[in-house]
Amino acid sequence: MKFQDKLDKAVQKNNSLLCVGLDIDLSKIPQTILAKEDPIFIFNREIINATKELVCAYKPNMAFYEMHGIYGLSSLIKTIEYIQSTDIPVILDAKRGDIGNSSAAYAKAIFQIFKADAVTVNPYMGYDSIEPFLEYKEKGVFVLGLTSNKGSQDFETADAEKPLYKAVINKVKEWNKNKNCGLVVGATKPEQLKEIRELVPHLPLLIPGIGAQGGNLEASVRYGVDRDGKNAIINSSRGIIYASNQEDFASAAQNAAKELREAINQNRFMK
Amino acid sequence: MKFQDKLDKAVQKNNSLLCVGLDIDLSKIPQTILAKEDPIFIFNREIINATKELVCAYKPNMAFYEMHGIYGLSSLIKTIEYIQSTDIPVILDAKRGDIGNSSAAYAKAIFQIFKADAVTVNPYMGYDSIEPFLEYKEKGVFVLGLTSNKGSQDFETADAEKPLYKAVINKVKEWNKNKNCGLVVGATKPEQLKEIRELVPHLPLLIPGIGAQGGNLEASVRYGVDRDGKNAIINSSRGIIYASNQEDFASAAQNAAKELREAINQNRFMK
Repeated sequence: MKFQDKLDKAVQKNNSLLCVGLDIDLSKIPQTILAKEDPIFIFNREIINATKELVCAYKPNMAFYEMHGIYGLSSLIKTIEYIQSTDIPVILDAKRGDIGNSSAAYAKAIFQIFKADAVTVNPYMGYDSIEPFLEYKEKGVFVLGLTSNKGSQDFETADAEKPLYKAVINKVKEWNKNKNCGLVVGATKPEQLKEIRELVPHLPLLIPGIGAQGGNLEASVRYGVDRDGKNAIINSSRGIIYASNQEDFASAAQNAAKELREAINQNRFMK
Repeated sequence: MKFQDKLDKAVQKNNSLLCVGLDIDLSKIPQTILAKEDPIFIFNREIINATKELVCAYKPNMAFYEMHGIYGLSSLIKTIEYIQSTDIPVILDAKRGDIGNSSAAYAKAIFQIFKADAVTVNPYMGYDSIEPFLEYKEKGVFVLGLTSNKGSQDFETADAEKPLYKAVINKVKEWNKNKNCGLVVGATKPEQLKEIRELVPHLPLLIPGIGAQGGNLEASVRYGVDRDGKNAIINSSRGIIYASNQEDFASAAQNAAKELREAINQNRFMK
């Protein structure tokens, strides 16, 4: 199924724009899980079981799996396989980008080996570094636009008149021939988010930075959604999956997800 | 040993600025190697044995290992371990970059799990996305500056007056507090390479694009080296490792590496 359709279905079925970031951190996982054979997968499976009726997507960040080497990446493959047994799409947050044949290899890795439904990519090297991902017409490709970190000032917004992130957004509009592009826009910048939504009325926006990064939820949702109150994917990672680091971590994650879904929904149709 | 020292030693010992890119492609590996248990590692080992007296660095691109999943990444770990038994530094071409804690996880993966001596990173997200790599003071961090692909026109050079790649280079000069920064500069742009070398007289430049990408070798070397005829790392991948796809692949790679080292050296001290 096309990523956009899978996303729309999950949004509707679960009445949710919440994306849960599966950013694994062994120091925050309960001891009883750590004692098991594949704690990363077991932890993720419990989180997924507890939240799969509450979310529109899952977003594992590859960095947190790569740092555990072969073992972590094996757990990631198992985790995505497990998510694929639900109807929820997986956005693999990989921020890849390279010259053409290398990007083609990354695209193969992300979509055929790790079997994600969508990916995040870095636009620095331009069109031919992203094209191999876009060629997977069924898959979603979220291009970094305006990120939520402090360093976004260095290049993305450095030129106040002609900011780089706007140049990227304009290119993404051109590149969206297969209707499978999205944009990553940090929740820490609600004013710019509003402007960006006006530039791309229909594109799915992946909005990280809620919670640990201190983004403004209310404004992010109001400005991020399209005219139908959809296509904003509001990500929270640590605020959900580490709501408790005790035995009750799964039910705590469920409660945190319920609350955030509700807070998001209160602002979805305020345009 | 600090990356810069390891690089200098290899440059001197092998009288070489040649870097061999270990971009694995199973369709170009001889049948007899493919029949073995770990063909990727075996192929790399043979290439390394044949070229380790001729190069200043090896550069595996992670994409070509990731596309083979767990098996490919295991072969990459074994390959880097094998290179570490020589005195040649390994630049892991990964083009990573993410928000702070994710980049810290990537840095751990690259330097502690894959055990590379240096890495390539993407500057789009700014300083805090690169800082976690720079904190490994012994390691080299090559920031994408001006890349060799067509897409470099989309953003890197889009603004003729204030090109993005120059903004990146100026920031890299500021960020180089641990003296472990380098830059990636494509060999397809000799004129800009000359300008860049003037901006950063002492930084190591990683120069891909020789051979398959059609870069101008002579100009790249002349403009790329520092005043001592060093600190330009001239990468060739397919032109060396797939010089033959028959049984003689290792000796063909050795001959190709000898020729290219010689061609590079003829232009090293022409300033």
